[in-house]
Amino acid sequence: MTTPPAASPPAPQTLGVWLVGARGSIATAVAVGLGALVRGRVPPVGLVSESAALRQLPLVPWSALVLAGNEVRSGSLRAAASELVAAHILPAELVADAGPELDAADARVRPGLAVSAAPGAAEPRDAFEAEARRLGSLPPRDQIAAIRAQLEAFRASLGGAPVLVVNVASTEAWREARAEWSDLAAFEASLDRGERPPASMLYAYAAFASGCAHVNFTPSLGSTPGALRAFARAKGRVHAGSDGKTGETLLKTTLGPMFAARALKVLAWQGYNMLGNRDGEVLADPAHKRVKVESKDEALRQLLGDPGLHSHVAIDYVPSLGDWKTAMDYVHFEGFLGARMSLSFTWHGSDSALAAPLVLDLVRLAELSQRRGEVGELVHLASFFKSPLGGGTHDFAAQYRLLLAWAAKCAPGESHGTR
Amino acid sequence: MTTPPAASPPAPQTLGVWLVGARGSIATAVAVGLGALVRGRVPPVGLVSESAALRQLPLVPWSALVLAGNEVRSGSLRAAASELVAAHILPAELVADAGPELDAADARVRPGLAVSAAPGAAEPRDAFEAEARRLGSLPPRDQIAAIRAQLEAFRASLGGAPVLVVNVASTEAWREARAEWSDLAAFEASLDRGERPPASMLYAYAAFASGCAHVNFTPSLGSTPGALRAFARAKGRVHAGSDGKTGETLLKTTLGPMFAARALKVLAWQGYNMLGNRDGEVLADPAHKRVKVESKDEALRQLLGDPGLHSHVAIDYVPSLGDWKTAMDYVHFEGFLGARMSLSFTWHGSDSALAAPLVLDLVRLAELSQRRGEVGELVHLASFFKSPLGGGTHDFAAQYRLLLAWAAKCAPGESHGTR
Amino acid sequence: MTTPPAASPPAPQTLGVWLVGARGSIATAVAVGLGALVRGRVPPVGLVSESAALRQLPLVPWSALVLAGNEVRSGSLRAAASELVAAHILPAELVADAGPELDAADARVRPGLAVSAAPGAAEPRDAFEAEARRLGSLPPRDQIAAIRAQLEAFRASLGGAPVLVVNVASTEAWREARAEWSDLAAFEASLDRGERPPASMLYAYAAFASGCAHVNFTPSLGSTPGALRAFARAKGRVHAGSDGKTGETLLKTTLGPMFAARALKVLAWQGYNMLGNRDGEVLADPAHKRVKVESKDEALRQLLGDPGLHSHVAIDYVPSLGDWKTAMDYVHFEGFLGARMSLSFTWHGSDSALAAPLVLDLVRLAELSQRRGEVGELVHLASFFKSPLGGGTHDFAAQYRLLLAWAAKCAPGESHGTR
Amino acid sequence: MTTPPAASPPAPQTLGVWLVGARGSIATAVAVGLGALVRGRVPPVGLVSESAALRQLPLVPWSALVLAGNEVRSGSLRAAASELVAAHILPAELVADAGPELDAADARVRPGLAVSAAPGAAEPRDAFEAEARRLGSLPPRDQIAAIRAQLEAFRASLGGAPVLVVNVASTEAWREARAEWSDLAAFEASLDRGERPPASMLYAYAAFASGCAHVNFTPSLGSTPGALRAFARAKGRVHAGSDGKTGETLLKTTLGPMFAARALKVLAWQGYNMLGNRDGEVLADPAHKRVKVESKDEALRQLLGDPGLHSHVAIDYVPSLGDWKTAMDYVHFEGFLGARMSLSFTWHGSDSALAAPLVLDLVRLAELSQRRGEVGELVHLASFFKSPLGGGTHDFAAQYRLLLAWAAKCAPGESHGTR
Repeated sequence: MTTPPAASPPAPQTLGVWLVGARGSIATAVAVGLGALVRGRVPPVGLVSESAALRQLPLVPWSALVLAGNEVRSGSLRAAASELVAAHILPAELVADAGPELDAADARVRPGLAVSAAPGAAEPRDAFEAEARRLGSLPPRDQIAAIRAQLEAFRASLGGAPVLVVNVASTEAWREARAEWSDLAAFEASLDRGERPPASMLYAYAAFASGCAHVNFTPSLGSTPGALRAFARAKGRVHAGSDGKTGETLLKTTLGPMFAARALKVLAWQGYNMLGNRDGEVLADPAHKRVKVESKDEALRQLLGDPGLHSHVAIDYVPSLGDWKTAMDYVHFEGFLGARMSLSFTWHGSDSALAAPLVLDLVRLAELSQRRGEVGELVHLASFFKSPLGGGTHDFAAQYRLLLAWAAKCAPGESHGTR
Repeated sequence: MTTPPAASPPAPQTLGVWLVGARGSIATAVAVGLGALVRGRVPPVGLVSESAALRQLPLVPWSALVLAGNEVRSGSLRAAASELVAAHILPAELVADAGPELDAADARVRPGLAVSAAPGAAEPRDAFEAEARRLGSLPPRDQIAAIRAQLEAFRASLGGAPVLVVNVASTEAWREARAEWSDLAAFEASLDRGERPPASMLYAYAAFASGCAHVNFTPSLGSTPGALRAFARAKGRVHAGSDGKTGETLLKTTLGPMFAARALKVLAWQGYNMLGNRDGEVLADPAHKRVKVESKDEALRQLLGDPGLHSHVAIDYVPSLGDWKTAMDYVHFEGFLGARMSLSFTWHGSDSALAAPLVLDLVRLAELSQRRGEVGELVHLASFFKSPLGGGTHDFAAQYRLLLAWAAKCAPGESHGTR
Repeated sequence: MTTPPAASPPAPQTLGVWLVGARGSIATAVAVGLGALVRGRVPPVGLVSESAALRQLPLVPWSALVLAGNEVRSGSLRAAASELVAAHILPAELVADAGPELDAADARVRPGLAVSAAPGAAEPRDAFEAEARRLGSLPPRDQIAAIRAQLEAFRASLGGAPVLVVNVASTEAWREARAEWSDLAAFEASLDRGERPPASMLYAYAAFASGCAHVNFTPSLGSTPGALRAFARAKGRVHAGSDGKTGETLLKTTLGPMFAARALKVLAWQGYNMLGNRDGEVLADPAHKRVKVESKDEALRQLLGDPGLHSHVAIDYVPSLGDWKTAMDYVHFEGFLGARMSLSFTWHGSDSALAAPLVLDLVRLAELSQRRGEVGELVHLASFFKSPLGGGTHDFAAQYRLLLAWAAKCAPGESHGTR
Repeated sequence: MTTPPAASPPAPQTLGVWLVGARGSIATAVAVGLGALVRGRVPPVGLVSESAALRQLPLVPWSALVLAGNEVRSGSLRAAASELVAAHILPAELVADAGPELDAADARVRPGLAVSAAPGAAEPRDAFEAEARRLGSLPPRDQIAAIRAQLEAFRASLGGAPVLVVNVASTEAWREARAEWSDLAAFEASLDRGERPPASMLYAYAAFASGCAHVNFTPSLGSTPGALRAFARAKGRVHAGSDGKTGETLLKTTLGPMFAARALKVLAWQGYNMLGNRDGEVLADPAHKRVKVESKDEALRQLLGDPGLHSHVAIDYVPSLGDWKTAMDYVHFEGFLGARMSLSFTWHGSDSALAAPLVLDLVRLAELSQRRGEVGELVHLASFFKSPLGGGTHDFAAQYRLLLAWAAKCAPGESHGTR
C-alpha cells in the first residue's frame, strides 16, 4: 500500500461497474437506487459517501456509473425489481421510473461461470443458462479468458473508460484452503494444470488481469488468497473485501468493543439469523453456510480478547421473510463481583436496502483510490466488511476512523467529521 | 485544565473516600467489592482501571482506600449488604468476609443534609436521622461548615491523607437553574443571604473548600454549575461528573454513532427503563424523574445530528425488580430508498454491580489526576458519565479514546491498548 | 338475553353497514377488504367468521354488505386507501381494483357530530366539515334526530334492508361517569334538558331508536352505560362491544390464564405500546389516553386474581410507525421457592389489518343474532373485545369457547371445532 | 381408562417417591422444595395442586412423601443443592434447613442403569458408579430384576406403603422405534432374547411389574411404547407422561391456539432454546437432541392445523446459563389482505424451579388416580406434558380444562375454578 498523493486526478466521466451476480437482490437494488440517485428522487440516506464526513471528496458522480455484469440464471432486472416491490423493499414508483435503465443494464449482462453442484441448480432453462453452464465446465484458463473478453468488450463499449468489478453473487460452497492459492506462481501453475479454484477467485483474477479494481462484497474467497493479493499488486490494482458488514456483524463489532472497554466479561454470545432470500436458500446448504459462519464468528474473539469465548452463529432459512433479515442475539455477561447480566437485541432489516448503498459507496471509494494511484488492499475500507482484506481491528468505530483519516489525506483542506 | 506533567508523584499510602450516600446500594457494593479486591478474592471484572489499557498507570492500590461518608437514613452497611445478597446482587460469602470492614466503615458514617420534602421522607426514626434533619434545615453557610468539619475530621483521622468526595446519593428533585449558580461571586452572595441551593452543590462546595477532589456519579447538579466549576479551579481541585453511564445510555452512546457512521436515519428512539431499587422509588416522583430524563435524552440528539429527533425516555418503578434494571429500547430507522427497519434491545443488569466498579475506577483515576497537578473538569473521564462535565462528544468510543490518550500521556513508555 | 331459536331465518340479500368514522384507517381497510372478498381476490385469512368453526353458520354473504357512515373530516376513501398503500398496509392492486366501490361508499358518507375540542381540531376546511361542526354543536335531541334521519335515509335507499351501526371512530376524551347515564329515564330527561353526553352514546341511541343493531369497536362509552343497555332491550336490538381486542390485550388475555393455571405469581406486567396513526395522535392527549389505559388494565387483575397486581400500560405516539403498532411487554414472575423469572414479548402488527376483519366478522355475527331474535348484549362475542359488554371472563380461550358454544346452538347439526 | 368412582379412599400416611435421576437438578429442587413445604417455609407458588381449583381434592399431604431413587453418578444431594444455590436457583436458607432430609434421601439412592455410551461418560470414579456401570451392562431381564429389587426393598422399608416411580433423568439417545416395542408379547420375547431397549423402558417395566404407578417427566420413551401401555393396563397401574411442559412449549401451546382462533396464518415459527445445565450438555449430543426436538415440534403443526408449517427448534448448550433456560421465539404471521406481522418472545426461567413443582403435583395427582382405581394413561394430566400419553389436543387451555373436569368428578360437591 503506497501512500496516496495529496492531490487527486479528476473523476472520470464514465465508470463501468461490472457486477458478478448482476440480477440478484443486491444488484437489483443497486440498479434501481442508482437510477433514483441520478434523477435526484431520493435523499442520500444510507450512503456513507454522501455523509458530511466524505462528501467533500472528489468522488465519481452517480451519473457516471454504467452497470453491467455476469449472471448464471436467466431472468431480468425488471422482474427482480418487481419481486422487491412486492416484498416491500423497493418503492413501486422508483422501480417504474427506472424501467428503461434496468432494461439497458440487463442487455449488458453476460453468462457467468455456473457451478453445476450449487444448491438448487437445475437443468439449464434456456440458451443463456446453457452458456453459463458451459463456461462453468471449462478449464480455468479458458474461464479467465471468457471473463476477460466480457470485461474488455464492456470497457470498449464505454470508450475505454475504467471498469470496476464487484462480486455480489451468492456465497460459494466452502472449500478447504489449498497451499497453492497462497502463492502467485503456484497458483498460476495450478491453473495451467487445469485445477479449478472457486469461481470467485477466477473473477478476481480476470479483473486484475484486465486492469480492473475489484471489490468482494461476499464471503467467498475472491481476492483474499495470497496469490490474488500478489497479483493485484503486480498489476497495480486496488481491491477491497470481503463480506459486506450490513447487519448483525455491524452490531457485534460496535457492541463488542463496549464490553471490552468496560472490562465486562462476555460469557456467551449467541446469534440467531433468519433470512428468506436467495442468499438464505444457498446458506441452508451446510457447505455454503460454513463460509459465512466462519466469517461472522471471528470478529468477536478478537474484539473481546478471548480466544475461548463461547459463541454461536446460526443462519436459518425462513422463506416467508424474503429479503427481510432478522437477527436475534443474546449476550450473557459477567460484571463486578460475579453478577450475571444480559443484553439481547433484535435487528430487523432489509438485506438489499442495507447492502446496495454500501456497494455504491465502495464503487466510488475504490475508484478514487485507484485513480489516486493506491495499490493493493484498501485497508481504510475495513468498516464496510466482516472480514477486512489486510486484517486489522474488527472494531467498527476504529475502522470508521481509518476511513475518516484517509479522507482527510485525500482532501486535506476539508473538514471530515470530528469523531 | 493544565497539561499534566509526564511524571507522576508516587501514590499515597492512604486515600480517604468520602461517599455522599454512604449506605445506599452503590456504596454498599463499593464497600463489599473493595474488601474482596483487597483480599484478592475476585477477578477484576468490570473494573476499567484494571484493564490492560490502564493497569500500567501508577494508580493508588486498593489497599490504600478507606471508606467513610454521609447518610441521611439510619441503618448499617451490613444490613444493606444482606439485602443485596437476597436480591442475588452480592455473593453471600464475599459479604460474610467483609463484615468487619463494613462495620468499620459504618462507624465512619456521619449524618448528611436530609431534605424533608424528599419522596418517602418520614419522621426521623432515631438520633442519627434527627441530626440529619437538623443539618438539612440549617442555613447553607452552616451546612457547608458542618460538612467541612466532617471531612476534615476524617482527614485528620487518616493522618492528613488526601480525601476524595464521591456523590452516590439518590437523585435530587429537579429545580429550575438560577442565574446566581453560574457565577462564583453571585453564588457566594446567595449563600450569604441564606438561600439554599440543592444539597449536592453544597457537598461539592465543601469538598473543594476543604481541598478535596469531587466526583458526581449522580444526575444531581453537584459541581456542574459554573460557580462550582470556578470554585474548583480557584482551589486547584479536579472534579468529574455527572451521572454514571452504566446501562441504557451506555448502549445509546455506543449504537447512536453506528447509525450516524452508516448514514442511517433514526426516525424514533423509544427507551423504556424499569427499576425497583431506592433510585427507582425516588424517580417515581416526577420532579426527580425530570432530572434523569433530561440527562438521558440529550446525547442522542447530538450523536445523530438531529435536533428534531423523535425520542422518548420512560423510567418506571417496578418494585419486584429491585436492583435489576431492565431497559427495553426500540429504534425505528430508515435506510436506502426509504426502507423502514428496526433495532430493539433489552438490557438486564444489576445497577449496583455496574456502578460500583466505575466508582472505584473514578476514585483511582481522579486521585491520580489530582496528584499530577491537573485542575478543573476531568474531560478525559467523559466515558464514565451521561452528562460529562466539560461537555464534548457523547460518543462512547470517542470518549474512551480520550481516556486512552490521557493514559498514554501519564505513562509514556507503556502500552495502553491499540484502539 | 333470550335463548335464540334453533332455526335461523334466511340471510338478507342486502345489509347496510353504517360506520361511525367512515374514512378512518379501519373503515378504509374494511372497504378495500370487502371489495377483495366479494371478488374472491383474497384468502379469508384473519376472518374468524370464515374459519372452520363458524363457516357453517347461515351468515350474510359478503356480497350483501353495503357500506356508508358518518365522518367529521373531509377527504375520500381513495385518498385514505392510498395512504395505507404507502404505509405497506394495503396491497396497491387491491386498492386499484376497489376504486369504484370506494367512490360509491364515499358518496354515502354523511357529516357526523364533530367535537370542537378534539385534539388537532382545526377550523372547518369546507362545507362538509362545517356541517359536521354545526351538528356537533346542536342540542342532543337534535343531534339524535339528525343521525336518525341519516340512518333512515340510508335504509330507504336500500329498499328497507336492515342496517347495522358500527363505531370505528377515534377514541373520545375520557369523562367522569354521570349517574343519569345508568338509568334510561334519567338519561332521557338529561337529553331533554339539553345535556350532551359523549357523541358515541348519541350514535348508539340513534341506532337503537331507528331499529339498528350496534357494535362499538372503540373504547368510547357507546352503548355501555346502563341507560343505553336498557334502551337496546326496550327496542329489541342486539349490541356488542367494546374496544376491539386486536393486539397487546389479545396476548395479555391469552398469556394471563397460563400463569394462573400454573400457579405462577406475576410480580409485574409492564406494557409499552407504540403507535403512529390517527389513533395514536388522539391517544397522545391525556384525556383520550385515560379511556384506553383503563380498558387495557383491568383484564389482567381479573385473570391473575390479584387486585394489587403491579401493572403499567403506556401508549406512546411514534409518528414514524404509522399504522404499525408495536407493543413490548415485560412480565416479571415468581415460581417455586421464590425463583424470579421473566417473559417479554414484542408484537408488531398493522392495526388496520388486525381490526378490519374483526369488524367484518362482527357485522355478520351481530346480524345473525338480530335476525334470530336475540336481544341485548351479545356476550358470546366477548372474545372480540377488550371490555366485553355483559362482563364475564377476560380469558381469551374461555371467551372463544362461548362463541363456539353459541355457534353450536345456531347450527346444531354441524361441527364447530373441538376446542 | 375406567371411570373413577365418585368417592376416593383416604390418602396414605406414607408415599414412596422413587426418582430415576435422583441427584439431578430437578430431583434436588424437588427434595429441597418438599422440605420447605413440609415445614411451611414457602408459599405454594408454582404448585398446581395447591391452586384454588385443585386444593379441595383429597391429595396426599406433603409430609407423607419419602424420596429415594436411582442415580448413575456419584455425588450427594447436598452438593447438588449447593450448586443450585450458587446459580441463584435455590435460596441458601432453604437448603441449609433441608440438610438432614437431603442426607436421608441420599442414603436411599441406589445405582441405576449406566449407559457407557452416554455423552460425557467417563470411567467409573468409585464403587457406586462401577455398580451402575455393571448394572448397565447386564442382560435386560437381570436389569429389571435389579430395579425391582430396589423398588421392593424401598417399599418394604416404608412398611409396604405405595411407591410411585418418576423419571427425571437426562434425555436418552434417540433410537429408531422397533416393531417389538409396540406389542407386549413381542417385547417380552425380545427381553428374553437379551435385546436391551432404552433404559427408560426398563424402569417403567420394573415399576409396573412391582405394582408402582409411573410418571415420565422426560422425553425418553419410558412407558410410551404400546408394549408398556399394555403392561400398565395388565397390572392395573396408572401412568403419565411424557416430557414436562415447563417453558417454551408451554408458551407455544398457549399462543398457537390464539393464532388459530383468530384465523391468522402462521408463516414461520422459529424457536431458539439456550440452556446450560446437565440437560443442555446431554442435548448438545445430536442423538439426544433429536428426541427433544421431535417432541417440541409436533404440537404446533397440530394446533395450527398446518402440516406444512415452517418451524424450527434449536436447542443450544450455553454453559454460563446453567439452569437458567432462555428461549427466544420468532413468529412470523400473515393477517387480512396479506399483511405480514410478527410476535417474538423471550422466556427466561429456571428449569428446575419450573419442573420441580410439576413433579410434586404429578406425584400427588397420579397417586390419587391410582388410589381411586383408575388404570392406564392419565389423559387428564395432558397439560403437564409436551407429548401427552394418550394423545389428544396440545392446546394448553383445553388440556387444563380436562384437569378441572377430572377434579370436579373427584370431589363433586366442591368448587374447582370456573374456566
